[in-house]
Amino acid sequence: MLKDLKEAVLEANLELPRKGLVTYTWGNVSGIDRKKGFIVIKPSGVPYDELKPEHMVVLDLEGRKVEGKLNPSSDTPTHLVIYRNFENAGGVVHTHSRWATIWSQAGKGIPALGTTHADYFYGEIPCTRRLTEKEINSEYEKQTGDVIVETFKGIDPAFIPGVLVNNHGPFCWGKDAGESVHNAVVLEEVAMMAYYTCSLTPGINAVDSTLLDRHFLRKHGKNAYYGQSAT
Amino acid sequence: MLKDLKEAVLEANLELPRKGLVTYTWGNVSGIDRKKGFIVIKPSGVPYDELKPEHMVVLDLEGRKVEGKLNPSSDTPTHLVIYRNFENAGGVVHTHSRWATIWSQAGKGIPALGTTHADYFYGEIPCTRRLTEKEINSEYEKQTGDVIVETFKGIDPAFIPGVLVNNHGPFCWGKDAGESVHNAVVLEEVAMMAYYTCSLTPGINAVDSTLLDRHFLRKHGKNAYYGQSAT
Amino acid sequence: MLKDLKEAVLEANLELPRKGLVTYTWGNVSGIDRKKGFIVIKPSGVPYDELKPEHMVVLDLEGRKVEGKLNPSSDTPTHLVIYRNFENAGGVVHTHSRWATIWSQAGKGIPALGTTHADYFYGEIPCTRRLTEKEINSEYEKQTGDVIVETFKGIDPAFIPGVLVNNHGPFCWGKDAGESVHNAVVLEEVAMMAYYTCSLTPGINAVDSTLLDRHFLRKHGKNAYYGQSAT
Amino acid sequence: MLKDLKEAVLEANLELPRKGLVTYTWGNVSGIDRKKGFIVIKPSGVPYDELKPEHMVVLDLEGRKVEGKLNPSSDTPTHLVIYRNFENAGGVVHTHSRWATIWSQAGKGIPALGTTHADYFYGEIPCTRRLTEKEINSEYEKQTGDVIVETFKGIDPAFIPGVLVNNHGPFCWGKDAGESVHNAVVLEEVAMMAYYTCSLTPGINAVDSTLLDRHFLRKHGKNAYYGQSAT
Repeated sequence: MLKDLKEAVLEANLELPRKGLVTYTWGNVSGIDRKKGFIVIKPSGVPYDELKPEHMVVLDLEGRKVEGKLNPSSDTPTHLVIYRNFENAGGVVHTHSRWATIWSQAGKGIPALGTTHADYFYGEIPCTRRLTEKEINSEYEKQTGDVIVETFKGIDPAFIPGVLVNNHGPFCWGKDAGESVHNAVVLEEVAMMAYYTCSLTPGINAVDSTLLDRHFLRKHGKNAYYGQSAT
Repeated sequence: MLKDLKEAVLEANLELPRKGLVTYTWGNVSGIDRKKGFIVIKPSGVPYDELKPEHMVVLDLEGRKVEGKLNPSSDTPTHLVIYRNFENAGGVVHTHSRWATIWSQAGKGIPALGTTHADYFYGEIPCTRRLTEKEINSEYEKQTGDVIVETFKGIDPAFIPGVLVNNHGPFCWGKDAGESVHNAVVLEEVAMMAYYTCSLTPGINAVDSTLLDRHFLRKHGKNAYYGQSAT
Repeated sequence: MLKDLKEAVLEANLELPRKGLVTYTWGNVSGIDRKKGFIVIKPSGVPYDELKPEHMVVLDLEGRKVEGKLNPSSDTPTHLVIYRNFENAGGVVHTHSRWATIWSQAGKGIPALGTTHADYFYGEIPCTRRLTEKEINSEYEKQTGDVIVETFKGIDPAFIPGVLVNNHGPFCWGKDAGESVHNAVVLEEVAMMAYYTCSLTPGINAVDSTLLDRHFLRKHGKNAYYGQSAT
Repeated sequence: MLKDLKEAVLEANLELPRKGLVTYTWGNVSGIDRKKGFIVIKPSGVPYDELKPEHMVVLDLEGRKVEGKLNPSSDTPTHLVIYRNFENAGGVVHTHSRWATIWSQAGKGIPALGTTHADYFYGEIPCTRRLTEKEINSEYEKQTGDVIVETFKGIDPAFIPGVLVNNHGPFCWGKDAGESVHNAVVLEEVAMMAYYTCSLTPGINAVDSTLLDRHFLRKHGKNAYYGQSAT
């Protein structure tokens, strides 16, 4: 079942260590088949170099296991909330990549300071509020998803395909599992460069909206002219 | 004698350069067989790419050589103090890994600033006081062990499996040699991210105890639910 | 047509990921045949590991396609302005390499703080002014070239073979495609070291002109004595 | 002639890119045969991956070429001054390695902030004064050597086997070419860690002399007990 999706999700998971985004098993990628309403996700705590397609776990959108012998990633409830609320998300990834985690731990969103950022994220990459004691002590991973959704009130998640969870680390999404990882790689680059830009010019402002429009829309939307599919 | 332990200790030593934790021969890992009361440790100053199982040195808990032609690591007395005092330590590692050493040189403990830290270390990773002139001039490496034990008065070393030795560098431990190195890798990640988090948000507080509990206990103890052994 | 130039431009493009200057497809190199008046440039958005000589796009100096099935890099108009105005430029490269981009985002030129810089760049590597809203909304990539040319009023581009585009990233050039990439690698090194030098000694001045002369002229011009072609 | 020395010097040169100390051809290592009074040095500007033993250049201590078709490194006069003045130097290396160069550019010596430093350098690694305009305009590379010697007035170069040349970068030495490169690798580690230690604890003092003695003498001198040659 879902053979292609399992392979795509496996491949996206394997991309994490190749791109230097994870240490040990600190990351997980999932993908969704919207028609069937099933998601495929990495099992919990299995080393990347042992992962095979048949290890992938299939769940429905309520988190009930449909197929697979292993426990799904412990972050599965967060993935599920994202899929249920962000209808364009076809893939979701969570990592503890260094620079994005630094901003998460600092509790600060990443301002759009250049065109590298603007090519992928249409404005500041927000950081969630801290969870309350009560939220932490109830369904913690689900609450993490809920606070992400709360953070995106008034923001189109297709335009800002990533978030920093306070005290924790980043989640990214995309049209499929592979694109979610691509966005996680970009987030890491942008997070590193933003740190040093702010250090070099304290109090620097974000780029203005004209430049943001130009770069984001150069790659996204109906007038995009970057790459080979553009005319 | 202790063939399996020698191979495990060798493998744990070889993991150090693979993970980028050591330059040249600046690191050493040991493991213990608690029943026999013997430890196995890397020889002193031998390049990693020449190490073989038969080079490993076997000592009793008083440091008397039981087997092996080579001199044991010059840090052996520190390892021995740790084994004699921290009864759950099955493996010990010492490195000069960059970020942990930076905090050691700065003489500061690493505060728990996020869930990456909380997943492995149940609170601040402490830094020892400086040794006195007298301690340095007597059995220096043993004194280093003693000041580590002194630092853990009131702290369960199973909950904080690592320490920063002032002006020097980190020691970590675990249930075996491999886990001690795993913890040393995590310490290095956590040390790097803590430096930049503090720089981005000066005066930032550690995460609160609720989040610390949730993450540490998600991976450790009887209610752990991370990985495949959890139910 | 232009077989050798295509191969040289391809090779220079492939050098970008090898030297760690690009993530994904974030970079492009071109080369020019001044006699024919044609440039060869990387196609837009094609992964580096799939690039072949026949993918290279041939254009005239007005940007009209002469040969090639693919769309040229979206930054082509910037390359063209540079070739039309800097007559010694035989190759041009654009990247989002981290440290050069940090200075670009900070809107600051890189002062000459040591001999590494002086060996290649005869003074500060300038940062352009920000583009106006009007410039961004008209032919953006051409305007980017124009503001580079404006920045070099009174500066010989053969002596400072690179520039930081404000909010964006670096462009470099050289006598051919390969040398432009060589200069981009040097720029990245110099940008990194300048950041930390300024941090270690705030308010530090650039090296004085005597040292700048000595080092730049040791490698360039008729009295050069570095390397094997010197006498 | 000097076949073994040529191979040792070649091997030491090749170690530079393997250890990440050089970009392109920015480094050079030499070795000396004290009995014959000849030095062997890398040729100028030849890429590392093309270097062969027969490319090495043989010179006498006055810099007269004894053997070799290629031009010697342009930094040869600096090497010669070091050999003529530091009688224990059997090998010399110059690089533009990043962290050592940052301290050189900042014009600051590297304080001994931990045992990693103390294991190799018996106190602060000094930075030379800036050269005067007159010195730069006369025999520049020889003057660079002279200012190194001037900096070591009252310091035993066998105890501090490296120096930072102001505005420029490091030179290191050792009992042979290989050890000089080993010291250059250590210098780079120490320089990186010292930068961040100072940033984390501004105004921090160097380690006290007791610890410095213990660590330096643990590895050097007649009472050394590190490694396998110790008893």
